[in-house]
Amino acid sequence: MKQGRLIVLSGPSGVGKSTVVAEVMRRRPNLRFSVSVTTRAMRPGEVDGENYYFITRERFDELLARNALLEHAEYVGNCYGTPEQPINEMLSKGIDVLLDIEPCGALQVRERRPDAILIFMAAPSFAELERRLSARGDTPEQVVRERLERASWEYEQAARYDYVVVNDEVAHAAGEVEAILVAEGCRTAFRGEVLQATAAR
Amino acid sequence: MKQGRLIVLSGPSGVGKSTVVAEVMRRRPNLRFSVSVTTRAMRPGEVDGENYYFITRERFDELLARNALLEHAEYVGNCYGTPEQPINEMLSKGIDVLLDIEPCGALQVRERRPDAILIFMAAPSFAELERRLSARGDTPEQVVRERLERASWEYEQAARYDYVVVNDEVAHAAGEVEAILVAEGCRTAFRGEVLQATAAR
Repeated sequence: MKQGRLIVLSGPSGVGKSTVVAEVMRRRPNLRFSVSVTTRAMRPGEVDGENYYFITRERFDELLARNALLEHAEYVGNCYGTPEQPINEMLSKGIDVLLDIEPCGALQVRERRPDAILIFMAAPSFAELERRLSARGDTPEQVVRERLERASWEYEQAARYDYVVVNDEVAHAAGEVEAILVAEGCRTAFRGEVLQATAAR
Repeated sequence: MKQGRLIVLSGPSGVGKSTVVAEVMRRRPNLRFSVSVTTRAMRPGEVDGENYYFITRERFDELLARNALLEHAEYVGNCYGTPEQPINEMLSKGIDVLLDIEPCGALQVRERRPDAILIFMAAPSFAELERRLSARGDTPEQVVRERLERASWEYEQAARYDYVVVNDEVAHAAGEVEAILVAEGCRTAFRGEVLQATAAR
């Protein structure tokens, strides 16, 4: 049976990943979204098991000790991680799985699963990213500066990704992600079934 | 300036390449079609410089001697080839160029231009290809058999292509080719301009 593909969408904070992910999921109902675990507190409007699985620090350390996380990261004092087992189950059923994770985690996936498809989401320009981060009125200037420092490092790592999608507008960025999914499905290695020439004769 | 990409669409005789190519060209007006040279006679309805450049055998041999052809092949007694110079000019202007050539030629391009994107067009099944070739009432059975032998070899070479597109219906096949073009445009190496992080700060 055909294996599913693991698709990682990543990029700096503020680039608008989650909005694009939501649009991609709407367009590709056969794609599954991998729900991460986190130790951070649930925010108003969030749903356990949908946005994240909200777990305790003890449970997180236990998953880590069992090597059950495909990737993990600590971010502003909270832990985030991707349980590997549910992903493997979906992939083995031929289902494509989408991960929306931080660039640190994306590079861990690159190491652990070289066949994963890594997509970096960039802003139209770094100045625009700066503008978007500053425009969030509720974020202290110090935090904005730190996120920009971090984004600068994350941009430097983009060469390790397979694709770069520019989030100029949601529909366009989602269209590019969709095209990548379709194109990757056309990869020669995934089309073995139609290439049976002699068997059919 | 950003270089254009060289895209080669190939596949067995009878798979319906030219119909899909016409649909792709209609959808992507910025894409240019590379017109081949041939020594075969012009058929009713064909236009010189549009379907092919119709040239003499002497002129063909001259191009070959000058190493001016990106690929060439002899097929049922006629010579076909792709002049390289016009392609290089378009690529250097950042224009993507599409080639519709026989699999023998496609593999020559693979050797000479490792960065070319090779797409193999397959029928939904080999039995269906057989049906399509036989259904052309004007083709003698011997020719059908030879084309199937040839197609069988061509299918075996498909592993050397980057992508396989299945021509079940024109719109779907053209959509897959289009997705490949969009996805290849998102390749990290082609997105350097948006990844200038520090320069903009």
